[in-house]
Amino acid sequence: MAKNELKLLGAWASPYVMRPRIALNIKSADYEFLQETFGSKSQLLLESNPVHKKIPVLIHNGKPICESLIIVEYIDEVWSSGPSILPSDPYDRATARFWGAYVDEKWFPNLKMLSTAEGEARDEVIGSLVEGLVLLEDAFKKMSKGKAFFGGDQIGYLDIAFGCYLGWLRAAEKMSGVKLVDEAKTPGLVKWAETFSSHPAVKDVMPDVDRLVEFGKSLAAKFKAAKTGS
Amino acid sequence: MAKNELKLLGAWASPYVMRPRIALNIKSADYEFLQETFGSKSQLLLESNPVHKKIPVLIHNGKPICESLIIVEYIDEVWSSGPSILPSDPYDRATARFWGAYVDEKWFPNLKMLSTAEGEARDEVIGSLVEGLVLLEDAFKKMSKGKAFFGGDQIGYLDIAFGCYLGWLRAAEKMSGVKLVDEAKTPGLVKWAETFSSHPAVKDVMPDVDRLVEFGKSLAAKFKAAKTGS
Repeated sequence: MAKNELKLLGAWASPYVMRPRIALNIKSADYEFLQETFGSKSQLLLESNPVHKKIPVLIHNGKPICESLIIVEYIDEVWSSGPSILPSDPYDRATARFWGAYVDEKWFPNLKMLSTAEGEARDEVIGSLVEGLVLLEDAFKKMSKGKAFFGGDQIGYLDIAFGCYLGWLRAAEKMSGVKLVDEAKTPGLVKWAETFSSHPAVKDVMPDVDRLVEFGKSLAAKFKAAKTGS
Repeated sequence: MAKNELKLLGAWASPYVMRPRIALNIKSADYEFLQETFGSKSQLLLESNPVHKKIPVLIHNGKPICESLIIVEYIDEVWSSGPSILPSDPYDRATARFWGAYVDEKWFPNLKMLSTAEGEARDEVIGSLVEGLVLLEDAFKKMSKGKAFFGGDQIGYLDIAFGCYLGWLRAAEKMSGVKLVDEAKTPGLVKWAETFSSHPAVKDVMPDVDRLVEFGKSLAAKFKAAKTGS
């Protein structure tokens, strides 16, 4: 077996799958991208992630690693001679991990709900999303210290953790007709999003917004049907 | 300010608060334990964790670190000369983090639900809990390699992440009258739980089961009232 045989089980539209892809690009590590089909799961996926049965899974020399941010940390630790993804200072690391967990546990679940929430619940979801962006703007100011990324001069852990949602954020705005990003409130994030999206490690894996909208519409219809049926 | 002025905002019954306490004990780091009152939040907590307003918060030389497992990693990184909490091998680290996330996102939420679920839902919850313990038994076999802890000879990340729930697991069994731990199915875990609970870094912060039961009964009544009201 080759020393660094890398397979990534994923799908083009998954924000979580973007994370290891960006991390591998940062480290200039070649990998085979195995696309899962939406709605079905390959035998390799079921065997590699029997607990959650979810993408992404990175298979490194035959050993599976699951959970997107855990994979990103793994990549950073194994390819330690490449550009660092986690900050070197323990406090900065803890801060990056804190906001990474925040976007996954609080912010993105609201973005997903935007497609199905109605009335007052929808207003609440929009309020939480905008409030979250303001919190992240503040975190960006503190963490970037005037530089381009949350990670400073280079793309880091939180850039990857939050940046992977940018495609879906833009798609959600298009689909819902709601403007979530207000440049007056979050000028730093708006500039960061442009810089991030056009970065060499990111631009080829950032999904096309119109294609996401099309895919998102079919997902929203499914969510709605599931909700009506419950 | 002293070099390592450490304050921990917490509460005796919180499994999440046990984590940094065990980690600090492992590193022989002295800290001031500031108990929050259940149902109210101190000004210091609100200022230190404005996003989630939750314990535990470790305040190290005036800087707050939030989220229990992030705090454990922070402690491991700052007190790097003490016994290691995370494994040194990146794959082992990823595995420990994977199961840490599993117990928080899948297993413990079910334990909390046991007090309020009824009928078929209750059977499902019990099934998931037992199934989770079998998965963790398997993880224990692979990770401990015949030694006492998930971390090998020494208490490590997953010992702390999962071990902090042992008090509540025992209390939940008492309160519900359901036997969740089956020694025939999970002999490794049963032995591990004994060794873990009596470890010098753990025994003084492991809450008394009867006191948890009493506290749990008052919590269950609140959950039930909230559920009935929804």
